[in-house]
Amino acid sequence: MEQLRTLEQALGEVVCTFQRYCRKEGDRNTLSKAELRSLLQNELPSLQTLQIKGRAFEEMLTLLDTDQDGEVNFEEYIRFVAAAFTFFHLYFRDAPVVQPRV
Amino acid sequence: MEQLRTLEQALGEVVCTFQRYCRKEGDRNTLSKAELRSLLQNELPSLQTLQIKGRAFEEMLTLLDTDQDGEVNFEEYIRFVAAAFTFFHLYFRDAPVVQPRV
Repeated sequence: MEQLRTLEQALGEVVCTFQRYCRKEGDRNTLSKAELRSLLQNELPSLQTLQIKGRAFEEMLTLLDTDQDGEVNFEEYIRFVAAAFTFFHLYFRDAPVVQPRV
Repeated sequence: MEQLRTLEQALGEVVCTFQRYCRKEGDRNTLSKAELRSLLQNELPSLQTLQIKGRAFEEMLTLLDTDQDGEVNFEEYIRFVAAAFTFFHLYFRDAPVVQPRV
């Protein structure tokens, strides 16, 4: 698998992923349910092992959509990303000195 | 330049970058001044054009180090990352339909 080159690239990728999926349909600045589903499936493949679909997917959208407008805006997306960072951090914290780049 | 493959890789990279630099010296869970300087120089090359050094670097550290213990912990790092996301988002928001992967 290819490696990331710099943190800068990783930061850009997190933002551009949101923007690419937002622009697929409807409001260009928010993720619809379909766009969010597509993003999670394509961009977070590990989530597939958690079988997040049907009712579980609806519950996840409700958690993310804190202003309850049925869409996920950038601020809500970043809150989700920050939660994912904490998960990764706890997961890798006690790993050997040099973690492999994922 | 190589492309990132998934959002998942990008998230992992943001976390592992912090952890790699933390472990270079001193406290393995926080960034010292030297570790932060090294991280910014190597991982955020665009910052070099802003000439963040000397007093400007000290001011940046003070901003990041909200608990004022002279080190940057994970929570403080993620706050910095979230600010960077907002900067990237505003920068790319009005870009053409498909942004290049950075």
